[in-house]
Amino acid sequence: MPDGSRRTPERVASTRLDSYVDRYAARTKGMTASEIRALFAVASRPEVVSLAGGMPNISGLPLDVVGGAISDLVATNGPVAMQYGSGQGDPVLREQICEVMRLEGIEAHPDDVVVTVGSQQAVDLVTRVFCDPGDVVLCEAPSYVGALGVFRAYECDVVHVEMDADGLVPDALRQAIQTVRASGRTIKFLYTIPNFHNPAGVTLSAERRAEVLEICREADVLVLEDNPYGLLGFSGEPMRAMRADEPDGVIYLGSFSKTFAPGFRVGWALAPHAVREKLVLAQESATLCPPAFSQMAISAYLRAHDWQGQIKQFREMYRERRDAMIEALDDMMPAAARWNVPQGGFYVWVTLPPGLDAKAMLPRAVTARVAYVPGTAFFSDGFGSQSMRLSFCYPTPGRIREGVRRLVGVIEEELELRQTFGAGGLPGSTALARGYEGPHTDLS
Amino acid sequence: MPDGSRRTPERVASTRLDSYVDRYAARTKGMTASEIRALFAVASRPEVVSLAGGMPNISGLPLDVVGGAISDLVATNGPVAMQYGSGQGDPVLREQICEVMRLEGIEAHPDDVVVTVGSQQAVDLVTRVFCDPGDVVLCEAPSYVGALGVFRAYECDVVHVEMDADGLVPDALRQAIQTVRASGRTIKFLYTIPNFHNPAGVTLSAERRAEVLEICREADVLVLEDNPYGLLGFSGEPMRAMRADEPDGVIYLGSFSKTFAPGFRVGWALAPHAVREKLVLAQESATLCPPAFSQMAISAYLRAHDWQGQIKQFREMYRERRDAMIEALDDMMPAAARWNVPQGGFYVWVTLPPGLDAKAMLPRAVTARVAYVPGTAFFSDGFGSQSMRLSFCYPTPGRIREGVRRLVGVIEEELELRQTFGAGGLPGSTALARGYEGPHTDLS
Repeated sequence: MPDGSRRTPERVASTRLDSYVDRYAARTKGMTASEIRALFAVASRPEVVSLAGGMPNISGLPLDVVGGAISDLVATNGPVAMQYGSGQGDPVLREQICEVMRLEGIEAHPDDVVVTVGSQQAVDLVTRVFCDPGDVVLCEAPSYVGALGVFRAYECDVVHVEMDADGLVPDALRQAIQTVRASGRTIKFLYTIPNFHNPAGVTLSAERRAEVLEICREADVLVLEDNPYGLLGFSGEPMRAMRADEPDGVIYLGSFSKTFAPGFRVGWALAPHAVREKLVLAQESATLCPPAFSQMAISAYLRAHDWQGQIKQFREMYRERRDAMIEALDDMMPAAARWNVPQGGFYVWVTLPPGLDAKAMLPRAVTARVAYVPGTAFFSDGFGSQSMRLSFCYPTPGRIREGVRRLVGVIEEELELRQTFGAGGLPGSTALARGYEGPHTDLS
Repeated sequence: MPDGSRRTPERVASTRLDSYVDRYAARTKGMTASEIRALFAVASRPEVVSLAGGMPNISGLPLDVVGGAISDLVATNGPVAMQYGSGQGDPVLREQICEVMRLEGIEAHPDDVVVTVGSQQAVDLVTRVFCDPGDVVLCEAPSYVGALGVFRAYECDVVHVEMDADGLVPDALRQAIQTVRASGRTIKFLYTIPNFHNPAGVTLSAERRAEVLEICREADVLVLEDNPYGLLGFSGEPMRAMRADEPDGVIYLGSFSKTFAPGFRVGWALAPHAVREKLVLAQESATLCPPAFSQMAISAYLRAHDWQGQIKQFREMYRERRDAMIEALDDMMPAAARWNVPQGGFYVWVTLPPGLDAKAMLPRAVTARVAYVPGTAFFSDGFGSQSMRLSFCYPTPGRIREGVRRLVGVIEEELELRQTFGAGGLPGSTALARGYEGPHTDLS
C-alpha cells in the first residue's frame, strides 16, 4: 500500500494483533512458522520418543579435551579469540577445513573458503548472492527443510527433481532444466545433498555424480553441494565430493555440526574465487564476521584431539542406531509400508501404507508419545503427505525401538479405522492422489 | 538476461575474470568492496597508528575469570552448550539481557528479545523483515557504515537526516519524512544511534529524544534504536533509552561487543511482540540458531564477574584515551579544523580545513603511518569528503598522540601544497562543494 495513506494515522497497536502487518517486506510471506511447530513443543517432553529431530548425539565428545583446549585458548590467545576477526574467517581454521575436505578428494586453497555461522548461513549467503525473486532453484524431491526455508525467504521458486535409491535421477534433472527454461524462467542453481540425504537417506552413486555434473556443465547450471554428513558413512571410505571433479561449477558447503558439535555454529562454503569474494561481502554485511571464539575453539579441538578417530566413534554409534531402527521397522511395520536403508547419516524415509496421511496422523502419534517429521515439510509444493522422516541420530537404540513400536501402534490403528470407515471416513486423512512420494529402496 | 540465451553456452571460466558476473542477484550491485579496503590492509601493519578501526580494547578483561567460567561451562553443561539451541536465543541469557537493558530504563520481557550474531545481524534481520527494494530508511548524516552496507544490500534508499551537536535535528527529520512521502516513497524506519554516535560522536539530548519519538509516533514511523555504546558514557548515569518510553514504536538493538567482547558475536534485538516473531523466523532461516556456546559463555561471564565494575573500568580507560585525543587535537590541529568532544563511546568526528579532501588524503596519511576512515564512508550519497572519523578506542594514549601528530603533519603539508598550487592543483583533492559535512560542537 502506498505510504501516503498513513500520513495521518491513528495508533492502532492496542486494537490489532500486529500493527506492523502491512509494513513487512514481501519476502516475509515466505517466512511462516511451521504448522507443526506447536506439536514439536509437546514432542520435546521427555516421555515422548522423538524420531523428529536432527540433533547429533554429541555425548561421546571428550569434555575434558574440549574444555582443556578452550581453557588453553583463553589463556594463551584470549584477546584475539575474543576480538573481531576476519569476515572470511580465521586463516588457520580455513587451512584445517581444507584438510577435512581432502578426505573427500577436494584439493582447495584456504583463500577460497568462507567460514559461516553453520552451513545454514552458507545456504543463506549463496542464495543472497545469486537469487532474485522468481529465480528457480532446483532441489531434490524431497529436500532439506532448512534450505527450502531459505529459498522461500528469498522468494525463489523451488522446482523439485525426482530421486530414487541412487539419488537424483539424471533424466529427471535434464527434463526439469528443459521445462523450466522453456517456461522462460531462470535457474540459479541445483541444490543437492549427495551423501546420506536429509531427509531421504539415499546417496548419489558415483556414476550419477559424473552424470549430474556433466548435465549441469552442459546446461551451465551451478551446483550447490551441501555435505554435512559426508564423513558419517557406515562402511568404506568417504565418497568423492562432486566439487573434487568440478572446481569451477560447484559451490561446496561443509559443517562441523555433525562431525564435532553444532553449538559453535561453524560451517563453511568453498566457492570459485569470484563467488567467494561476493560471499565475504555478504558475510560482512550479515554479521561483520563469524564468531572468532567459535572458530578458534574448533581449531584448538582439531589440534588437540584425534578428530578422525572421534568421527569413527560417531559412525559406529550412528550405525548401531541405524541398525536398531531398521530392525524395528523390519520386525513391526505393516507390510505395505516401505523405507530405505541409509548407508550413513541420520535419516530413514518411510512411506506409509496407501491411504494414510503422515501429517494428519502426527497429533495422534504425539498423543501416543512418538514424534516424526511429516514428509510434506520437505516439499515446497504439498507433496509428501504419505511419507515421514524418522531420525535415528539422537535417541538410544532402546528408545528407537520403543519409538517405532509406538509409531506402528498408531499406524495400525489408522489402518483399522480406515478399514472400518473406508477411505473417506478417517478424520483428517486425505486420499493419496499426489503420485510421487520420494525415494525408496527395496532393501527393507 | 533471460536464461534461454545460455542454453548452449561455452564454458568461459578460464577466459573471463568472473564467469558468474551475469548471474548474481540484483542486490549484489549494492554489495561492493570498499575502495579503501586495500589501504586498510596496509594500515594494519604495526608501524601504522590506526585511528581507523572500531575494535574495543579488551585487554582489561580478566582472562582467568573468563577462562574459568568457560571451563566450568564445558564441564557442567558442555553437551547443552555444544548442541543446537533455540532460534530465539538462550532463555537464561535473554533474562540477563533484560537486566542489562534495565540500566537504561527499559522494562522488557525476555520473550521479546531475539539474540543475534552481533547487533550487525540484528540490523540485517530487521531490514530483511521490513524492507523491499526501493523502500526508504532514514539515517543520520553521517551514519554507521555497517548499517549503510545492510541497507544497500537490501536495495533500500537511504535518506540522510541532519545532525548537530545534540544529535538528530527534529526539524530536519520532520522535513525528511514530508519530502520522502511527497515523492511517493515508503519509509520503513528511522535508523538512529542516539548515544555516542558512530561516527559522529554526538549524543541525542533528552529533550530531542522525546521530540523525535513524538515526530515518529505522529508520522507512524518505526524507530530502530541502535545502542552499542550506551553504557560507555564518561560521566553520570546512562541516558534513558528511547525504547524505555515507546515500547510499541521502537526496535532496540544491543550488543555485548563493546561492554564485554566482540569475538563471541552476541547482540540482540528487543522488538514489539509481532515483530519479534518475524525476527525469530528470519533468524532460523539465516542460521537455524545463534551459537549456543557463545551465549552460554557470556551468560557464565555475567554470573561469574562484576560485569558492571568491568564496564566502569572500560569507561575510565576510554575516557583517558578520549582525553588524549582531544588534547592532541587541541595542541596540534590547524585552526580551521573542527571536531567535537564525545561524552562516551569510541569516536571523534573531525572536519578538515576548507578545501581538503579526507579520502584523497588517505594514501598520503598511510604513507605517513597513520590511518583514519574518510567521512564519505558514512554517507550513502558521496557527502563527507571534508571529514574523517578518528577512533580512540584501541591505541594507547601515547600512540593516539603520535597518530594525531602524524596526521597533522599530513594535513599541514596538504595545506601548504594548496597554498602553493591553489585549490585546483592539489593532486587527488576535490573542491568542497557539498555543503553539509556532519555535526560539530564548538568545544574544541
